Amino acid sequence: MTSFTQTLGAAWQRTGSLLCVGLDPEPTKFPAALAGRSDAIFEFCRDIVDATAPYACSFKPQIAYFAAHRAEDQLEALIAHIHEKHPGLPVILDAKRGDIGSTAEQYAREAFERFKADAVTVNPYMGFDSIEPWLAHEGKGVIVLCRTSNPGGSDLQFLTVDGKPLYQIVASLAAQKWNASGELGLVVGATFPKEIETVRALVGDMPLLIPGIGAQGGDVEATVKAGRTANGTGMLINSSRAIIYASKGEDYAQAAARAAEETRDRINAYR
Amino acid sequence: MTSFTQTLGAAWQRTGSLLCVGLDPEPTKFPAALAGRSDAIFEFCRDIVDATAPYACSFKPQIAYFAAHRAEDQLEALIAHIHEKHPGLPVILDAKRGDIGSTAEQYAREAFERFKADAVTVNPYMGFDSIEPWLAHEGKGVIVLCRTSNPGGSDLQFLTVDGKPLYQIVASLAAQKWNASGELGLVVGATFPKEIETVRALVGDMPLLIPGIGAQGGDVEATVKAGRTANGTGMLINSSRAIIYASKGEDYAQAAARAAEETRDRINAYR
Repeated sequence: MTSFTQTLGAAWQRTGSLLCVGLDPEPTKFPAALAGRSDAIFEFCRDIVDATAPYACSFKPQIAYFAAHRAEDQLEALIAHIHEKHPGLPVILDAKRGDIGSTAEQYAREAFERFKADAVTVNPYMGFDSIEPWLAHEGKGVIVLCRTSNPGGSDLQFLTVDGKPLYQIVASLAAQKWNASGELGLVVGATFPKEIETVRALVGDMPLLIPGIGAQGGDVEATVKAGRTANGTGMLINSSRAIIYASKGEDYAQAAARAAEETRDRINAYR
Repeated sequence: MTSFTQTLGAAWQRTGSLLCVGLDPEPTKFPAALAGRSDAIFEFCRDIVDATAPYACSFKPQIAYFAAHRAEDQLEALIAHIHEKHPGLPVILDAKRGDIGSTAEQYAREAFERFKADAVTVNPYMGFDSIEPWLAHEGKGVIVLCRTSNPGGSDLQFLTVDGKPLYQIVASLAAQKWNASGELGLVVGATFPKEIETVRALVGDMPLLIPGIGAQGGDVEATVKAGRTANGTGMLINSSRAIIYASKGEDYAQAAARAAEETRDRINAYR
């Protein structure tokens, strides 16, 4: 079986892209032609996926946007579509789950068996036994929240522990104690490139999922230079809204493709 | 409109119970008569709810157990059943969500508009802007993870910040900065009664959701004495498996009722 990190490594090489396309579908932002269609969420995301796949190394559907609309079946269909039509591009289910024991096992079944994601985002607040049940799913990726770029991100993550901000403690725990499977990654926001650099130094070649460029405004050059590994990869640089809502008209898929291509190229200029 | 804390306060007075019945349905643990039924999860939980309602102040379905089995529709039906048949007993959706901005808004729609929960559990790692979008839903309760009783709970929550463990910082943030709505609560595990006492001192009369008695083995006497408020309430003491799986036979509902009654009485002996 090919593991998440192996699939991702191969995707970076084959596609020449570090771009992860985030799928945050909001029906109120869809073009008029999709209005009222019962499977509009699936259709919109499928069109975005098919148009942007040539420029991406991965896709990241955010489960909240499906759950709020009773559209879990459309999320299942979307991930099945990605696996079928775009094999080798891993799907990261952005769910930020965090629980322990048999509850975490149920969440892992949800993400990996029901939705067939290749990796999932998780929250570290409950500690290692909230990470461990996910690792029992061999070859699946587990991407731990470390440093988030929202204003409130500092409320906890920047508290000082032993002279260091908490997010660095999380990075070190993930790299040194929690990564027995070799399939861990970290979420590190793009707003603070210096912090990406610090995390990279703490975690070796661990994959970093980096939201916050595009609509959220992070600096691409500084982000890439701070987070790249020796071979110029190591990052899933996520853009959601700036790509999927590049046009609100009927040309949404073509506009998304252009935005994805431009974003890939902006990233690659600094690798 | 009656808010979560008002409903809960009235439930404590009217029922004379601090017991929250946790609904963690695992089909492999159901009695044989339910095997193979397409709505077994709903039927099992409905029977548990109807049998234990006389002894409980609230119910807490854990969403992972429904999501793993594509049973969101059964969770909707279950919560609707509780509201219809047992009005005045608040439903806490245990989801431990944690995200920001428009994603958090989608999660809030999922919990409050789709599932019609009265309150939800959330994770504080991303800070106040991961709490705030929930507060926009007037009158709904938001119960923030503070101190969890699993072994890994200490990995982050017990790290020292300004001479205090992180969970105390979270308790103080929740009580002093985040509770503009007055509808916040905290999750504090039952394993360490001294810590419950510390949290109670930090947060005044804020409701505490306390898992970890019953199957997880916390000491009821010490827990109640540590967490009660001046009027002998202030706690939702949760028990899940010890009640819902009190019998694996056809008498599961009656056995659950007996276990709920005994647990209520054990708690009340120390109020």
